[in-house]
Amino acid sequence: MEISSIGGEFGLIKRLTKKPISSDIIKGIGDDAAVIKVESKYLLFTTDTLVEGDHFSLVYFTPEKIGKKAVEINVSDIGAMGGVPRFFLVSLVLPRDIQVELVDGIYHGMWEASKKYGIEIIGGNITHGPTLVIDICMIGEAKEEDLKFRSNAKVGDYILVSGPLGSSTAGLKLFLNHIDGYDEVKRKHIEPEAKFYKVRPFLKHINAMIDVSDGLASEVTRICEESKTGAIIFCDSIPMDSLAVEAAKALGDDALDYALYGGEDFELVFTVSEKNLAKVKGYVVGKITTDQGIRLLKEGKEEVLTKTGYDHFLTGI
Amino acid sequence: MEISSIGGEFGLIKRLTKKPISSDIIKGIGDDAAVIKVESKYLLFTTDTLVEGDHFSLVYFTPEKIGKKAVEINVSDIGAMGGVPRFFLVSLVLPRDIQVELVDGIYHGMWEASKKYGIEIIGGNITHGPTLVIDICMIGEAKEEDLKFRSNAKVGDYILVSGPLGSSTAGLKLFLNHIDGYDEVKRKHIEPEAKFYKVRPFLKHINAMIDVSDGLASEVTRICEESKTGAIIFCDSIPMDSLAVEAAKALGDDALDYALYGGEDFELVFTVSEKNLAKVKGYVVGKITTDQGIRLLKEGKEEVLTKTGYDHFLTGI
Repeated sequence: MEISSIGGEFGLIKRLTKKPISSDIIKGIGDDAAVIKVESKYLLFTTDTLVEGDHFSLVYFTPEKIGKKAVEINVSDIGAMGGVPRFFLVSLVLPRDIQVELVDGIYHGMWEASKKYGIEIIGGNITHGPTLVIDICMIGEAKEEDLKFRSNAKVGDYILVSGPLGSSTAGLKLFLNHIDGYDEVKRKHIEPEAKFYKVRPFLKHINAMIDVSDGLASEVTRICEESKTGAIIFCDSIPMDSLAVEAAKALGDDALDYALYGGEDFELVFTVSEKNLAKVKGYVVGKITTDQGIRLLKEGKEEVLTKTGYDHFLTGI
Repeated sequence: MEISSIGGEFGLIKRLTKKPISSDIIKGIGDDAAVIKVESKYLLFTTDTLVEGDHFSLVYFTPEKIGKKAVEINVSDIGAMGGVPRFFLVSLVLPRDIQVELVDGIYHGMWEASKKYGIEIIGGNITHGPTLVIDICMIGEAKEEDLKFRSNAKVGDYILVSGPLGSSTAGLKLFLNHIDGYDEVKRKHIEPEAKFYKVRPFLKHINAMIDVSDGLASEVTRICEESKTGAIIFCDSIPMDSLAVEAAKALGDDALDYALYGGEDFELVFTVSEKNLAKVKGYVVGKITTDQGIRLLKEGKEEVLTKTGYDHFLTGI
């Protein structure tokens, strides 16, 4: 049976998830990071992998940027739980003929990102394989009152995003199609940054939160599945960089598709009750509803969301 | 510059290691697991990776056995620090056409091993890539007095191993050379098990400890490098299974080479002072010395150890 026949990554994860047993597990599989209570502390654990050819190409990524990206995407997951990063472990799978300078470069990128966040590499593993793989397991911590789960969206909550979406996908497609220019858009793809600092000042007013790694449609679906709600997405309100919109046009695409079904923007998607709306900063892009399913409101017309976001085992964009 | 030119994995890890800054880091890179102090608890973190073709072959491994192995090798690292395993995260890189049943099998193997140790999967990541990769990041805990470091060997300590070495390498070579029989030896390769339960009853008498993942020569070298000592290995005293010795003969090899330079036996290598020797259980295979370097005592002759253990970036056996 192919993975696509059980609904791709989504289906596979559901199939492989068991209910936690230990009472120390505050949150297991099914959020941006796991939460474990250790005495009075709440520790966060997340892992994310970059595979050469799938998540980066050495044609347009420098080794430093690969290392930086590997750290940023994990920091983003810790931040999306309301936490701050502390330590990480690095697993490298290296082709046998890889040059030491390339590995040095990846580590320099990781050290640079670590310095920015005041975090440290505490361990890891180096082994051999046919393709370059970088896997980071990151440990963070959060105060109990700061913890944000996907499962906490309330009916009537507004859905907000912390910044423009679709730029990273536009950047990737510009590279893949060998289109010159649009450097600022391309930079969004090769230099992704965690954005959790944007929401930290008003964390206490947020109900549910997730970071955008697979596109808005996918992230809203995850919030709704975990919160057992539905949602309506106001497509015309999704913020997008004008240069990314222009790039999409040049590529013959609709930038909205990048925002909904692309990924790696690492902005935060969060839900806020109506009474707290004035206390947060962000762009309103939808509302949490009682009825199951996600609807898209676009140019005055409503349609039901059928596909989700970028899925390696289904048709990506 | 090739990795082999800087001394393989050993050289690369040295090059990429920085001194820890945070005082919460009790042990950073350079042991079986990292140790972080969280309030009064000592948490252990380790990561280990299995790559198809390098660490297992689907020809002689069932998916269940791959999953089990992935857990056992990480449990072994936690145990070698004097700790017990608690939780783990799983990163999978899956080829796009992989069958769901194979992934199910890997998880069943992981669940089975988890049950044995009373541990749980708390998170992970699934992505796509050309080769099947399973990376586990495991979290354990230890009492302060139980913590065992590679760096704590004392001059005059005896070096002991907890059980026979070389069987896993013999098993692998039997598979690679399509030799029938020797099922018990082959089983040692495809069903490795953490052995830390063997040393737990007398942990307090152990000075330094490490598990055998890359062969005795490599593990003693690591203890000596971290402890700034030398060692002499009593080659004729290394315990080996008689069937593994027989298999080595059939393969035209010397079983001692498997024990010294092979790997994945997951027995423990530990050092004990002379006065505590009667309080522990194990096989004496050497002694810690003041002079730098490792010497091999074999059939009454002494030679200097020049190669280390299995290294993916140097010539393996």
